[in-house]
Amino acid sequence: MRPNEFKAASEAGDGGYKCPFCPGNESCTPPAVYSLPSADEKSWRLRVVRNKYPALVPGKNIGGRTNGIYDRMDGIGCHEVLIESGRHDLRLEEMRVEDIADVMRTFIIRTREIKKDAGVEYVMIFKNHGMHAGASLSHPHSQIIALPMVPIMVEEEISGAMQYHRAKGSCVFCDIIKEEAGFKKRVVAENDNFMAVEPYASRFSFETWLLPRKHLSHFEDMPEELVSDLASVLKKALSQLYATLPELSYNLIVHTMPVQAPEAAHYHWHIEIMPKLSQVAGFEWGTGFYINTVSPEDAAAMLNDGKKYQL
Amino acid sequence: MRPNEFKAASEAGDGGYKCPFCPGNESCTPPAVYSLPSADEKSWRLRVVRNKYPALVPGKNIGGRTNGIYDRMDGIGCHEVLIESGRHDLRLEEMRVEDIADVMRTFIIRTREIKKDAGVEYVMIFKNHGMHAGASLSHPHSQIIALPMVPIMVEEEISGAMQYHRAKGSCVFCDIIKEEAGFKKRVVAENDNFMAVEPYASRFSFETWLLPRKHLSHFEDMPEELVSDLASVLKKALSQLYATLPELSYNLIVHTMPVQAPEAAHYHWHIEIMPKLSQVAGFEWGTGFYINTVSPEDAAAMLNDGKKYQL
Repeated sequence: MRPNEFKAASEAGDGGYKCPFCPGNESCTPPAVYSLPSADEKSWRLRVVRNKYPALVPGKNIGGRTNGIYDRMDGIGCHEVLIESGRHDLRLEEMRVEDIADVMRTFIIRTREIKKDAGVEYVMIFKNHGMHAGASLSHPHSQIIALPMVPIMVEEEISGAMQYHRAKGSCVFCDIIKEEAGFKKRVVAENDNFMAVEPYASRFSFETWLLPRKHLSHFEDMPEELVSDLASVLKKALSQLYATLPELSYNLIVHTMPVQAPEAAHYHWHIEIMPKLSQVAGFEWGTGFYINTVSPEDAAAMLNDGKKYQL
Repeated sequence: MRPNEFKAASEAGDGGYKCPFCPGNESCTPPAVYSLPSADEKSWRLRVVRNKYPALVPGKNIGGRTNGIYDRMDGIGCHEVLIESGRHDLRLEEMRVEDIADVMRTFIIRTREIKKDAGVEYVMIFKNHGMHAGASLSHPHSQIIALPMVPIMVEEEISGAMQYHRAKGSCVFCDIIKEEAGFKKRVVAENDNFMAVEPYASRFSFETWLLPRKHLSHFEDMPEELVSDLASVLKKALSQLYATLPELSYNLIVHTMPVQAPEAAHYHWHIEIMPKLSQVAGFEWGTGFYINTVSPEDAAAMLNDGKKYQL
């Protein structure tokens, strides 16, 4: 019974829809757990609320138990929504660098707060933009989900990075940064502290990774002086995707270490942006291999040439 | 540059589109590698062709090589399309049981043929039906892809089943069949040789598995006397999904052992059907965990009550 703006708009016409994330409609959401004031201090410019339709809810984790031959556990955790702006139609990359920096800073502040609960093993930060990426509301927002266990995808990525580190003695992400800086043809944006690349053998067309040049395993440990550069490389990468592709839908995911784990030499936080240009189909679901019809080298050239493409 | 019927129809109107899989248009596809004659023997009722836009192509596998710090290998294998009927608008579950049995039998015949090539490690059989499942043509068809390596998803499933077998001394799929036969509330179709269930804690709403009651690790080793029962349970499971859900799109995947591996006590071939009712979003991509808003128990009750639901 979650609201779906896209369905609601097509059923009722745009006029029949009241956005729960717009200023004035605060009563449609649970109260804010964090917010930043607007310039005139009469309203807010950014707001974090508990998700009204949470994937996980706070409670006491009583561990696994069985159900016939199966194992189960309760969905304990928390699920917050970060409303990125008071403006309904302002996309993240259209915002000013300092406002995008506020969004990034808020991710950090909330993660540091949420991880004080020792039952929280992982904080997953992500953004779904556009219908094809599973977004149900168009007002710019991201999500923060606290989990009572390390997700399987995170475990696999970290264990792969650990195997690489054991074999080569270096961090795989640091090595990727070095390789891409030398090769150049997959780089789409960069500044002193970050590099945006179309990763080698990417799963999705126009998949884009934002890599911090300096090794650090936890996103929430990022020093304040890097936040503005992150905002600026994100603005540039998303703006280029928008300029190049028609009707962009994407998932953005912060990849980071489990919050209770110590700083690690083998893992390097980063952000992955996955544009959704085609449906994932049976071959991908069955194999875990991805057929990508646009090589990352071609994607980078297209993003860098400033033209619009019809795919 | 693959043709997309859905795009073509919306751009040119239905009349402007020529289906490459319809009888009379055989020149639009590569020649048949296998076919069954129509009743009047003047045409065909089922046809297997090489995919004109293959994901993998035949050739000599020269193994991995490096590209900077990365590893790569050629996409060696083969990619066949099984055209399930001469009729453009006949969906698989609308076909007669004996015609669906022909489709299943052809999967087996082609797999037995393809695996004679010792370079083929895995044969992936799947079907994408409907736009939301990534199908680009609506004429009923499935796909057979031969791979030079065991896909990561297959490896993980088999290794999970092996761990279960080591811990409990029994096959996890045999145990699921026993559990579901006792619990009953997740069963949606069954006959002497097969059971269709909404699996416990399924990833997708209305996800449906077809499980052969008798343990066997390789799909292509299925004895001929089981083929008709498989066709009949598949017809019933898909028909119920169609009757219950509006505009069904689904991926169907045959899960089976690598073709060069011997029969195994720990793995049990089966078919998984994944209806695509919602978009996979950031949380799922980031975690590998799936949020499913319809429990398998509710889904089974809805499939069994014969009503149509708007979701």
